[in-house]
Amino acid sequence: MKQYIYGKNTVMESLKGQKPVYEIYLLKTNNDQKLLKIANSKRIPIHYVDKKVLDKKVGNVVHQGIVACIEGYDYFELDDIINDIPKDKQPLLLMLDGLEDPHNLGAILRTCDALEVDGVIIGKNRSVGLTPTVAKVSTGAIDYVKVAQVTNLSRTLEKLQKNGFWIVGCDLNESQDYRKVDYNMPLCIVIGSEGFGISRLVKSKCDINVVLPMKGHVTSLNASVATAVILYQVYNSRHPVE
Amino acid sequence: MKQYIYGKNTVMESLKGQKPVYEIYLLKTNNDQKLLKIANSKRIPIHYVDKKVLDKKVGNVVHQGIVACIEGYDYFELDDIINDIPKDKQPLLLMLDGLEDPHNLGAILRTCDALEVDGVIIGKNRSVGLTPTVAKVSTGAIDYVKVAQVTNLSRTLEKLQKNGFWIVGCDLNESQDYRKVDYNMPLCIVIGSEGFGISRLVKSKCDINVVLPMKGHVTSLNASVATAVILYQVYNSRHPVE
Repeated sequence: MKQYIYGKNTVMESLKGQKPVYEIYLLKTNNDQKLLKIANSKRIPIHYVDKKVLDKKVGNVVHQGIVACIEGYDYFELDDIINDIPKDKQPLLLMLDGLEDPHNLGAILRTCDALEVDGVIIGKNRSVGLTPTVAKVSTGAIDYVKVAQVTNLSRTLEKLQKNGFWIVGCDLNESQDYRKVDYNMPLCIVIGSEGFGISRLVKSKCDINVVLPMKGHVTSLNASVATAVILYQVYNSRHPVE
Repeated sequence: MKQYIYGKNTVMESLKGQKPVYEIYLLKTNNDQKLLKIANSKRIPIHYVDKKVLDKKVGNVVHQGIVACIEGYDYFELDDIINDIPKDKQPLLLMLDGLEDPHNLGAILRTCDALEVDGVIIGKNRSVGLTPTVAKVSTGAIDYVKVAQVTNLSRTLEKLQKNGFWIVGCDLNESQDYRKVDYNMPLCIVIGSEGFGISRLVKSKCDINVVLPMKGHVTSLNASVATAVILYQVYNSRHPVE
């Protein structure tokens, strides 16, 4: 499916990537020789347009005077994600329950790329999907991390449990210190939304609840930050320092 | 110094906080009873205005129809920050070298509040400061974390070294695994900018360089994410799990 992306770095990443770039729209004043050279070598049509045209394509965002039409970001089927996990690898999935902020999803995809996360599961409703902003913030990670959209998060967790996954919720209440858990088993880590944490039904499916120690006044961390601290703990559990 | 802040949660946090709130500007259609009740009980003048008036006050941002004029965010002197560290606490400072994204600074302040960071040092030039966006993203942490603005980062590090601090740079090159370091000493952690990492002069002052293991295709993590992973490692080094 065709999709518009924007921003200098994101378009450059796309030009270097594997997905087709169909067309590039530039502000008339744009004279980025490096970008023009790559675009020309790939025979991608370039249109010089007014700011209004760019605004219309991607809405009221900081597009930096550059928009590209590319082959859009595809979602994966969860079954395919699970089947594709190498047999010699300890499976690791991440479920985002109601995450809304594209900056958070972009940063999370970057962390998932770094830490061998096999797939990310998001809900079809009330959640941010793979938008151009997510692509930009992910600085290319969106091309490497598999994302599945599902209609029912709690039923998905039941299915994962039947497939041998342990479900670890990251929540404030009734939880143990995240450092006390051995993460060396097939896992799905569940992270809640920015405003409301993990929803009741999803939480009821969690086998283990963990919490990050916090000594200050504010009661929660940024969602992408909390995700990264947990995922690095999982990594450390599976790859102890020598 | 008076300053405008915006967004429902940020204004609510300010109303609950210690800093004076001088005036509130609301969209005519806003009917947030909870907020109005607190504002009235504190006798804060409320002005019902058009969207244009709000846009003019805070610029082209998602203000959610609410702007408040408050006593602005003050910076601290680094000497005062150091002198205020309790004698029985292992000092911990964070230096941000050229950080530009207010979302990152806001998320970092949240993490610093959670993990007993004594102060954050930022440069006066080419760095994001304590803006309304930072305040909003920090969800109140801006009121609890001390921030110092300095003119020369590398000279500041020299001064810290003379005061017994060890400087730990978080960089990709010539670095050791971040888990191999004992952080149980007076520390200043240095985080580089989103685009360029730690600058050459600042890096030359670092006593130890650490790197986070990354197994994927993208070569760096989001700055607020990397900061949190390091700071939790420092916390774990100082407060081992029982």
